[in-house]
Order: sequence, then C-alpha cells, then structure tokens
Amino acid sequence: MSDLPQRITIHEEGPREGFQIEPGPIATPDKVRFCEALADTGLTEVQCVSFVDPRRVPGMADAVEVAHAIRQKPGVHYTAIALNLKGYERAVQTPLHITGGLQMSASNTFSIHNTNKDNAETLAEQRRQLAFFRERGIPVDSAIIMTAFGCNFEGAIAPETVRDCVASLLALADEFGITLERVRLADTVGWASPLQVQRVVGTVRERWPDLPLSLHLHDTRGTGLANALTALQMGITDFDSSCAGLGGCPFAGHKGAAGNICTEDLVFMAHEMGIETGIDLDALIECARMIEAIVGHPLPGKIMHGGSLTKYRQPALAGAAA
Amino acid sequence: MSDLPQRITIHEEGPREGFQIEPGPIATPDKVRFCEALADTGLTEVQCVSFVDPRRVPGMADAVEVAHAIRQKPGVHYTAIALNLKGYERAVQTPLHITGGLQMSASNTFSIHNTNKDNAETLAEQRRQLAFFRERGIPVDSAIIMTAFGCNFEGAIAPETVRDCVASLLALADEFGITLERVRLADTVGWASPLQVQRVVGTVRERWPDLPLSLHLHDTRGTGLANALTALQMGITDFDSSCAGLGGCPFAGHKGAAGNICTEDLVFMAHEMGIETGIDLDALIECARMIEAIVGHPLPGKIMHGGSLTKYRQPALAGAAA
Repeated sequence: MSDLPQRITIHEEGPREGFQIEPGPIATPDKVRFCEALADTGLTEVQCVSFVDPRRVPGMADAVEVAHAIRQKPGVHYTAIALNLKGYERAVQTPLHITGGLQMSASNTFSIHNTNKDNAETLAEQRRQLAFFRERGIPVDSAIIMTAFGCNFEGAIAPETVRDCVASLLALADEFGITLERVRLADTVGWASPLQVQRVVGTVRERWPDLPLSLHLHDTRGTGLANALTALQMGITDFDSSCAGLGGCPFAGHKGAAGNICTEDLVFMAHEMGIETGIDLDALIECARMIEAIVGHPLPGKIMHGGSLTKYRQPALAGAAA
Repeated sequence: MSDLPQRITIHEEGPREGFQIEPGPIATPDKVRFCEALADTGLTEVQCVSFVDPRRVPGMADAVEVAHAIRQKPGVHYTAIALNLKGYERAVQTPLHITGGLQMSASNTFSIHNTNKDNAETLAEQRRQLAFFRERGIPVDSAIIMTAFGCNFEGAIAPETVRDCVASLLALADEFGITLERVRLADTVGWASPLQVQRVVGTVRERWPDLPLSLHLHDTRGTGLANALTALQMGITDFDSSCAGLGGCPFAGHKGAAGNICTEDLVFMAHEMGIETGIDLDALIECARMIEAIVGHPLPGKIMHGGSLTKYRQPALAGAAA
C-alpha cells in the first residue's frame, strides 16, 4: 500500500444531499446546527444547500435562510451548488462560499435525460456560464465528469470516453484562462468497482499526470469504500462524501438504494490506515447521530451505529465500556 | 491488482446468522425455502442452523425440523454449527453436512467473556472435542481465530498473537493427525481495516506460505468490502459472508450495528473485477429480497436495494429499464 497518501481532504456534502432528498420537513434551525456541528469536527468544506427551484425540491425552500443563519467558523468553506444562472444569482447574495464549476456527463444519453441537453449543448451552455462567472467575479475551481464509471442508459463507459470529456473541459477552462484546482470523477449511478476505478483514474492520469483528481463515489452497490480504498492506493487525496451516508440515488430505480459514501466511515478507514484527515472522528459520529435523530429514521452510515474504537483503545476505560 | 485470484469460494452463513439474531419468529417453511433458494444460486455451502440451547436462542428451536425439511441439491453442503458436544450429538443425527472445527480467540479476555474459558482452558476443551470428533467419525476441516484484528476488551491485537494462535491450533490438529483445509481469520468485533488485514494475513502467511487462509469479515464500521478487497489483492480465495447482510454484531454495543459482510455485494465486487464465484448474482439478489420480505424490515445489503447492472448491460432492454 505504498502509494497511500499521508493526508486526504474531504468535501462534506451531507447537508445539501440530505436536505434535498429527505422527505422532511427538516426545521431550518436543525439544518443550521447540523452544518455548524460539521464545521466543528475539522472539516474544511461543508456543502450546505442548493439554490434550486423549491417547487421541484421543497427541502431547499429555506436555502437562503439557512445560508444566512449559519455562524461561520474561520478556515471553513460553507459551500452551495446551483444548477443554472438564476440559482447562482441567488447564491452569490448569501454569505456562502460560491464557486463555479464545469460539468459534463461521460454518457451523452444520461445528459439528455438529466438536463435535456446533449454533450454539445452542454458545452455551449458551459461557455455561457463561464462568461457569467467571469462577469460576476465568481471563481471557477473544478470540473466534474458525471457517470464516469458507467451509466444506466449507455451501460459500460470506456475510460477513453472519460478522458475525452476531461480534455473537453480542460480546453474550455483554458479558453477562459482558468486553471482548475481539481477534476472530479463521479460515480453518479453507482457503477464503479475497484477495477473500474483503477482503469478510469489510470487512463486520465496517464494523459495528465499532474492533474489533481477527486472522486465522488456512491455506495449504491456496496463497493463505495472498496472503491475509495483503490483510489487511496493510487494516491488520490480528495474525496466527496456525506455524513451518515445522507442522500440517496434517484437513478437507482429503488427507493432504498444508497447514495454517497459515508464520511465518517471513510474517515475511520483513513485513520486506521495512518492517513490523516484533520477530522475528529468521534465528533463527526456525533453529527451523524444528530442528523439521524433529526430525520427520524435509520441512516446508512455504519460506524455511527457500530461506534468508534476510541474507548476500547483506552485500557482504563475498556473494562467499563465493553 | 495482479495477485487477484481467478475464482473465490463463498461460505454462505446468512440463514444461521439471521435465524439466530432476528427477533422473529420466522416460520419453519420460510427458513427452509430460503436455504433451498440460496443453494439454487450456485453457492456450494449454505450454513443453515446452529444446534444451541433454544432457551438462549429461540430462533433455533426448530433447527432439527429445518435440517430435515430442506430438499438437498447434489453438490451443495448444507452445514450447521454446534458450540459443544451436546450440540454436535443433535447435529449428527440430521441430514446436514456436519464437520468439526477448532477455535480460539486471539484475545484471551474476549474468550473469558464469551465462553467463560481462558485460552489454556479452550485448548484443553478442544482436545476433548477432537477426541469426540474422532470417536464419532466427524471430519475436522478448519480452525478459526476469533478477534484476529482487534478486541473490545484488549484493544489492538498484534499480528504475532494471531500467528501464535494459529501455531497452537495447527499443533493440536497435528497431534490428532489432522490436516486442516483452511484457517479462518475472523474479525469478530469489526476492528479490521485494510492495513490490518494486510498485516495479519501477511504475518500468518510469512510463517506458513501454503496454508489456505479464509476471512470471516464483519461490516461493523463500514470497511467490510474494502477489507475483502485487500484480501483479494493478497490472493485470498475463501470468504464467509451473509446474504442480505443478515446477522448483527452482538458485541458492538449498539443494536443497529452491522454484522457479516453481505454475500451479494461481495459477489458483485468480485464479478466486476473479473473474479469468478460460480454464483448467479441476480438469483442471489432475489434471495436477499425474499428474506427481507420474510423478516419484514430493511436489511443492510446494498445491491439488493440498488439492483444489479445486468439489465443495463443489455442494450435492447436498457431504454425500458432505466
């Protein structure tokens, strides 16, 4: 396991994922204290809300209110996502850390089903969006390739297709004089296996050895942390994940399907392998239990139910604890 | 991933785990049809019941009845466990495939708490049990080392301690002229990480390079399949697992804690990596859904909820399915 990184960075997406998909309603103050508690664990990036049409996503009706209510801690980025210019207009009026991103789906068919635009139209729209970001002074930091490991419409996705998507977005960024901080490879519909992670990451890295890659993994079919392990073994240092495994997979065709990999399970695995995260695992587990109590039903995270090993490693307490 | 095996063997423990821990009751015919359905998937070993005191484990009160009712399919071993000679006496009177095993805990304290015997007493009892197996013509095929990756009482377990336990059991087997088919390393209380799997397997294998090792992994803290991946990367070809993730972890101190790794999730990962299992994944997923319907509450398996990729890989069906 010699390519393991010394330290990884985790982009927490639990609040946004959860507020969006939970049948709710979740009270605004509960949303705020969850975001604040996450920031207290050592996480440096917490994605709080999305600025989307509340008629389509009722759980985001109070997004602006949540954004204003959070007491921000120095050194933490409280982020949000927007899907279009209208959303960005609302987002930039809040105190949240708003950045622009490029996106594309490795599956053209998925793109059409998901956004009503094929890949050519998506690129054209990205160009308009980049002009908007420039005009409004919104920094652009990353690009994301969706369905990078497989697609429910197109089936298997060739690693070369992912590489071509990355090339398109890098060219677009270049056109606007932007250097991307990272390119995110997303397992949007939960197709990834350790072997596929190895192939896709390997193919992209072969072409751009110094391009920082980030993985956005789902646990739809149970291999989420095994896929993350493979990424760690390849030296990937940047992951998106979700506290308590909040979220779901609207594309899985089954309401019980799992969504993002669980942050505290990932942190546990990293720490056990000597990889630093800067995160207090026990505090993070408390966040997971807090949001489980708030939503009122069991969430998919594992260590939040199994408990951390901390107490068992303190011999004086072990007798009482076990 | 060059040390990956071409094929692995899975020992299905779901029925025994589930019937034992589910609050139930589960009707006897439901137990029988679950065992039979599992055997129809290509699994070659299905652990059906345990012969234990029904006052302690009410779900096993009908163990003998289940054992007799199963219509056995040629080529499949329908197995059971017993914890003492009295249990074995009942077991051998059924049509199940009964084998003897050796066992020991890498944590002496765990052993005392779990069985009321320390390691020396455990070894003495094993000797009596081996004499019984010989007398009754019960074949002895394996040894299991419990808490091989950590213990809630003793904390971290040194790989050398596991190695010494293996040495003790191999010496005992040798004393009785027995060649063990495999030595099982069990993550009884869910402490294993990929790094710890690498260390423990590596330490044991360094001493006995040709000894077949098997892993019994739990998913208490979410790293179950990542641990299995590490084992696969080290060429391990033998795993215990549980359909739908049936079972639990009575030692985790939290009733929602996960138990064994989920068979169909493991099979999915293996197949996606080109590793054969001889198992029909879709049929196995149907078994998981069957037992979930029988127990009447959500079980922890992932792909049983996310669905397999089979239908998406058949282009003619993909449009309708997605």
